[in-house]
Amino acid sequence: MTLPTIDDVQAAAARLDGVAHRTPVLTSRTLDAMLGGSVFLKAECFQRVGAFKFRGAYNAVASLSEPARAGGVATYSSGNHAQALALAAALHGVPAAIVMPEDAPSIKVAATAGYGAEIVPYDRYTGDRRAIAESVAAERGMTLIPPFDHWDVIAGQGTTALELFEQAGPLDVLAVCVGGGGLISGCATVAKAQDHPVRVVGVEPEAGDDVKQSLEQGRIVEIPAPHTIADGQQTVAPGEKTFAVMAERVDEIVTVTDPEIVDAMRFAFERLNVVLEPSGASALAALLAGRIETAGRRVGVTLSGGNIGVRRFVEVMSA
Amino acid sequence: MTLPTIDDVQAAAARLDGVAHRTPVLTSRTLDAMLGGSVFLKAECFQRVGAFKFRGAYNAVASLSEPARAGGVATYSSGNHAQALALAAALHGVPAAIVMPEDAPSIKVAATAGYGAEIVPYDRYTGDRRAIAESVAAERGMTLIPPFDHWDVIAGQGTTALELFEQAGPLDVLAVCVGGGGLISGCATVAKAQDHPVRVVGVEPEAGDDVKQSLEQGRIVEIPAPHTIADGQQTVAPGEKTFAVMAERVDEIVTVTDPEIVDAMRFAFERLNVVLEPSGASALAALLAGRIETAGRRVGVTLSGGNIGVRRFVEVMSA
Repeated sequence: MTLPTIDDVQAAAARLDGVAHRTPVLTSRTLDAMLGGSVFLKAECFQRVGAFKFRGAYNAVASLSEPARAGGVATYSSGNHAQALALAAALHGVPAAIVMPEDAPSIKVAATAGYGAEIVPYDRYTGDRRAIAESVAAERGMTLIPPFDHWDVIAGQGTTALELFEQAGPLDVLAVCVGGGGLISGCATVAKAQDHPVRVVGVEPEAGDDVKQSLEQGRIVEIPAPHTIADGQQTVAPGEKTFAVMAERVDEIVTVTDPEIVDAMRFAFERLNVVLEPSGASALAALLAGRIETAGRRVGVTLSGGNIGVRRFVEVMSA
Repeated sequence: MTLPTIDDVQAAAARLDGVAHRTPVLTSRTLDAMLGGSVFLKAECFQRVGAFKFRGAYNAVASLSEPARAGGVATYSSGNHAQALALAAALHGVPAAIVMPEDAPSIKVAATAGYGAEIVPYDRYTGDRRAIAESVAAERGMTLIPPFDHWDVIAGQGTTALELFEQAGPLDVLAVCVGGGGLISGCATVAKAQDHPVRVVGVEPEAGDDVKQSLEQGRIVEIPAPHTIADGQQTVAPGEKTFAVMAERVDEIVTVTDPEIVDAMRFAFERLNVVLEPSGASALAALLAGRIETAGRRVGVTLSGGNIGVRRFVEVMSA
């Protein structure tokens, strides 16, 4: 398997130029004082659709051949990738079909449909969403763009780190939220191409440590569907492509508990004035919980998404 | 009375360079589509101490003569100016005394004390906070830096607009949250010095429309202490200096109700992923409530502060 290079990420950045937001990097002297290092928070919660996912989805659609793109794109996702792909397709003026569970939150269904995508419902207890999406794509002549295990998706997500290094300068450590591994695969590709050595640390919820187990055992380990508030990190296994990149370029995976994620969301709210969804707060949670060595170091952190309603936020904070 | 000029604001910007954050300008295609214009949100909730107040306080301390500064600074405030002046003094290595009501929220007292300032409590029902602060300052040889009615404070707050014009380009309208008028006085000074005409609109809570009444009547009108959730805008009258600047350079004051402010806070949370305190959301509230003409216009908006705890946020959202 030929792994992507920083050139692929730079090509993605050119495609995203003027389309994706160049999100701000936030710093907090309070946080630096607590951790004894210099922390640079890449605020992808301010990305279009509220999460880094737009980068990969847009890059994947933009990278299709003209005839393939004209046929449209399909995927399976109940989360941020659904909205991201729907918007990416709309911006290219091509159709999109998104396979979503029948019981997906209506707010997410509405947001995805709002970009003009067709929603294809399925029963999450009996249906295989990937197989359904494949058959939808085949029937309609669409191209399937999976949420993470796709080279152009990975390269697109990597532009997050490309910008962060431009904005923050050299970093000693890069802490990245990990679900299926698309974001960290792209970011690690950028980090390991820097002149300065960068330690790349992935952060998973404790209950959903499929990537940690997979990297430790040197093979893809599949776990039962995890119970965690971090719904964007409820993956059961890394993909073949993301596993291959992570095995080569990620130094360590650490885990955080749900209460630690809630603490990080509260810290982000009260001290940074930023809204993070649980999955978007996990890398920050690892720092605050002392899972990552920060003393005297320059540390980049992804705040990967902020899609949470007030109602759900109140529930999570009251739990 | 000689009003400040954009040169004063530029001098303030030089003093703040590398000390204050150059806060991001957020844009939202959702918001633009709702309003039919192009909206540029100057996110001062990401400023040091979580609000624009740091700009004015730091500029005022930095502008003192060496011997005056060495004697320290004093003020009266239970809000963001207290923390801002405490931090500005700490950065200059000089003492600060802050007169705060005995029943001020302990979180705000702790934050102010955390910057090394001395807290001087007073009884808000019997004491005159300004008189107390004046006597504290006189006794200790400190300089009183009031929250808004001070030329160096006004010039410092104006750097908010200076950056916004640099970041967003020409604007047709500038909507600014108004409490005592320090922020809008500085920002209007910048706006009216642009080549392009800029309509400057201030936004007050409906219950606390002292500035609106004052500008309409052409004299400083004092109102009873207003009941509004926007605690940073509970002023009873503009200052002499801010009134003079606003009378000359502000085109209109509009008001928003508390429920409209709550709606804007919810919009900021859910669609922008930004935490705003009530006072910081009022200008956005005016746009969302249709109080300001936005169709086809380029509109700058201050998101002036984000200091609200999770507990208070939940209360406000549940009310």
